[in-house]
Amino acid sequence: MTEDVITFLEREHDAILERLKAVLRLPSVSTDPAYADGLKAARSFFMDRLSAIGLQDVQLLDGGGHPAVYGAWNGAPGAPTLIVYGHYDVQPPEPFELWQSPPFEPTVRNGRLYARGASDVKGSTTIAVETVAAYLAVTQRCPVNVKIFIEGEEEIGSPSLRRIVERHRDLLQADGMISADGGRGSTEVPTLNTGARGIAWLEVNVRTAAKDMHSGRYGGALRNALHELAALIASLHDPEGRIAVPEYMAGAPALTERQRSDAAALAIDETAFYAELQGVPRGDRSYSVVERLTLLPTIEVNGMCGGYTGPGGKTVLPCTATAKLTMRLVPGQDPQKAVEAVRRHLEARCPCGVKLTFSQNGGGSPASSLEAGHPLLVAAETVIERTTGQRPVLTRLGGTVPILAIFKEMLGLDALVFGFAKPDEDVHAPNEFFHLSSIPEGLRAWTLLLAELAKFKPEEFHA
Amino acid sequence: MTEDVITFLEREHDAILERLKAVLRLPSVSTDPAYADGLKAARSFFMDRLSAIGLQDVQLLDGGGHPAVYGAWNGAPGAPTLIVYGHYDVQPPEPFELWQSPPFEPTVRNGRLYARGASDVKGSTTIAVETVAAYLAVTQRCPVNVKIFIEGEEEIGSPSLRRIVERHRDLLQADGMISADGGRGSTEVPTLNTGARGIAWLEVNVRTAAKDMHSGRYGGALRNALHELAALIASLHDPEGRIAVPEYMAGAPALTERQRSDAAALAIDETAFYAELQGVPRGDRSYSVVERLTLLPTIEVNGMCGGYTGPGGKTVLPCTATAKLTMRLVPGQDPQKAVEAVRRHLEARCPCGVKLTFSQNGGGSPASSLEAGHPLLVAAETVIERTTGQRPVLTRLGGTVPILAIFKEMLGLDALVFGFAKPDEDVHAPNEFFHLSSIPEGLRAWTLLLAELAKFKPEEFHA
Repeated sequence: MTEDVITFLEREHDAILERLKAVLRLPSVSTDPAYADGLKAARSFFMDRLSAIGLQDVQLLDGGGHPAVYGAWNGAPGAPTLIVYGHYDVQPPEPFELWQSPPFEPTVRNGRLYARGASDVKGSTTIAVETVAAYLAVTQRCPVNVKIFIEGEEEIGSPSLRRIVERHRDLLQADGMISADGGRGSTEVPTLNTGARGIAWLEVNVRTAAKDMHSGRYGGALRNALHELAALIASLHDPEGRIAVPEYMAGAPALTERQRSDAAALAIDETAFYAELQGVPRGDRSYSVVERLTLLPTIEVNGMCGGYTGPGGKTVLPCTATAKLTMRLVPGQDPQKAVEAVRRHLEARCPCGVKLTFSQNGGGSPASSLEAGHPLLVAAETVIERTTGQRPVLTRLGGTVPILAIFKEMLGLDALVFGFAKPDEDVHAPNEFFHLSSIPEGLRAWTLLLAELAKFKPEEFHA
Repeated sequence: MTEDVITFLEREHDAILERLKAVLRLPSVSTDPAYADGLKAARSFFMDRLSAIGLQDVQLLDGGGHPAVYGAWNGAPGAPTLIVYGHYDVQPPEPFELWQSPPFEPTVRNGRLYARGASDVKGSTTIAVETVAAYLAVTQRCPVNVKIFIEGEEEIGSPSLRRIVERHRDLLQADGMISADGGRGSTEVPTLNTGARGIAWLEVNVRTAAKDMHSGRYGGALRNALHELAALIASLHDPEGRIAVPEYMAGAPALTERQRSDAAALAIDETAFYAELQGVPRGDRSYSVVERLTLLPTIEVNGMCGGYTGPGGKTVLPCTATAKLTMRLVPGQDPQKAVEAVRRHLEARCPCGVKLTFSQNGGGSPASSLEAGHPLLVAAETVIERTTGQRPVLTRLGGTVPILAIFKEMLGLDALVFGFAKPDEDVHAPNEFFHLSSIPEGLRAWTLLLAELAKFKPEEFHA
């Protein structure tokens, strides 16, 4: 039965690629209100597709922001029910001038499909949807019950996801979740992801006077908002780039032996890593790069701005400055406590009179983690051994999938991350792409995965 | 002889006031193309007046923008030659509704002449022109050779002044300059301005990787350009906001007793100063605010930017960041050496592998300064003591005056600022006015000044 489905998917390859290109043409940038039409078009695309392949209850689940697309197939009584997760929103395309082909005109070059969202995560979302489509087309049924849930706010931290889950708690009852978001950990060895770092957001605003002033007339006796903000941002790390906020680090437990040996199994050529990115090493050198990227927390400034930044110069003494921070959290760190620790650190270092205010772009999410022996992990390991001939190395994601944390917390669902993006695909950057070879690989693996999951009883997912 | 000239000017007072009113009726707003006719009329007015009083070579000096008005009297061989500087352009009058009488209908109320440009600087420019006129009318000669230069772009930053000087270098050869622009520093005590801080420009660029990266996937092992730039910018000052670049400060000599006592004589209410600006104190508290604003150098970041700064958030690890710096220089600091000192400071603190590059938005200008014993200063001090009975308090400007810097750099001329505006005259604001009492005061002082300057030999101005 699974072989018929796989054969069908192989025949359908070109049609699937065209459908992926079609959705990549829709500019669904969730952070920028200018892209409202693109988001709407991407929702309509998936609504239409879920209806066309025979799902029921196809609808938008609204939580007050960009709604999620939902559709279910519940024709396998007694079999487990899985939420299949993807997202239709993408990161902003800027800077446009660095793209070799326009970000919303999907273009194939050298076995790669270039477009904003190709890797993150319209490619893997399409693989998941098309696998279910193929089962229903070929066998008129699916091995497990499936609830497809395609979010519209993943790239902005899923701000309304909690309300969506609250409002549609009944619709979202399930035994586990499979996420198409979060890719493979290596281009070399098969890996299996057991979770992701969490995230917390904090925007820092500094004000030093009522208005911008003339730097000649006032320079030398008045605080400059950019100097103050620079000093505050600099205080978050030591010169090596190690986090210098003890209260924040106190929430992160020491690494286990198992974590360290798994990381060692995936050791990368660190010299090559830095050479390829033309990047400069940073952080605690007693941990490997893999450990620093996935098992240790971070504090990063994602953007900072103040004063005059146009062409030429302007002799202004800026009175305000802003920095956008995110923190990547490890299991054990609470997002709100992490934010408070950083706030307190900054407040303690803010000179008297300088006004420091904070805002948050999202509530944040704790790290997620899938424990050993779980049906999702067992099934996935089986599929990977069958498709690659190797036992996968367990990894974790450095990035954040808020959905994993929220579905665990609100619906009790553990999640398997089973996306097919590869680590070289320039996600969030210009010239994002998806390896075309990942399409057949992903379709085959997802077909086998749904069949493997059918071998478990629903209650085994909740053990 | 000077008494005859002063007597003549006293008799001519009403006619001079009428001529001042006439030029104040001409709306010569340089920033707004709608006022082209007003600028042209103001030029014609001064061209006619310079010709009428007997100057030679009366002409427009064109640098591609609003031309300057020029006229010379060279009948005193062996005596020094002075450029007399003023400007015929004014600031925009808006907001009109706040003017008690129309901005271009000069109106006398309570001993004040209200009009746009009355204080800045048609009043003092008229005083300078009429002084020369009176000498020529009464004595058929002037104590010194005079080259009157009335600029048309002072209020927009003198964009074509360098080209004017370049094109008319021969015409502008002189031994020194007297500027009618830049007024008295106090309504209480007589002051004399001896110069202004200079300026140097430096743009700092940091690069930490070949491209922006996903902060989840790469965060923790790679340097972040904004963190690195923040640390570099923070290193320029200590926590009090004192400059922490010893090599830069080494170029700035310690303040003299005279400088400190003069600054003390003009002490401001520092609490009120900070309260009005809602500003936060900064810098070396062993110096007063007046000293920090005018006698000490600065390093300011005028703008800084990197990463994502649009609405919402973006989980990017920025690979580049930029800061625009300006330095306000005091006498003794060379602009290029100041830039080099800051460069070396930043380079020494830049972590290995982080790429630091620099660009400059302009060549910079050294501070302008009349040193003790300079004929311009000696003559001006003598005049002020004679006219007020008090020794003037020496002041300096915190900002940079392009005309002073350009004439020093391109023609080697030191300048005396000898305008008669007072600090309460609402320059650049609605209801700008000129104290009527400043007209006889200014005419008398300028008459004496030209006579005093004639006591020096040309070469003494270049010592």
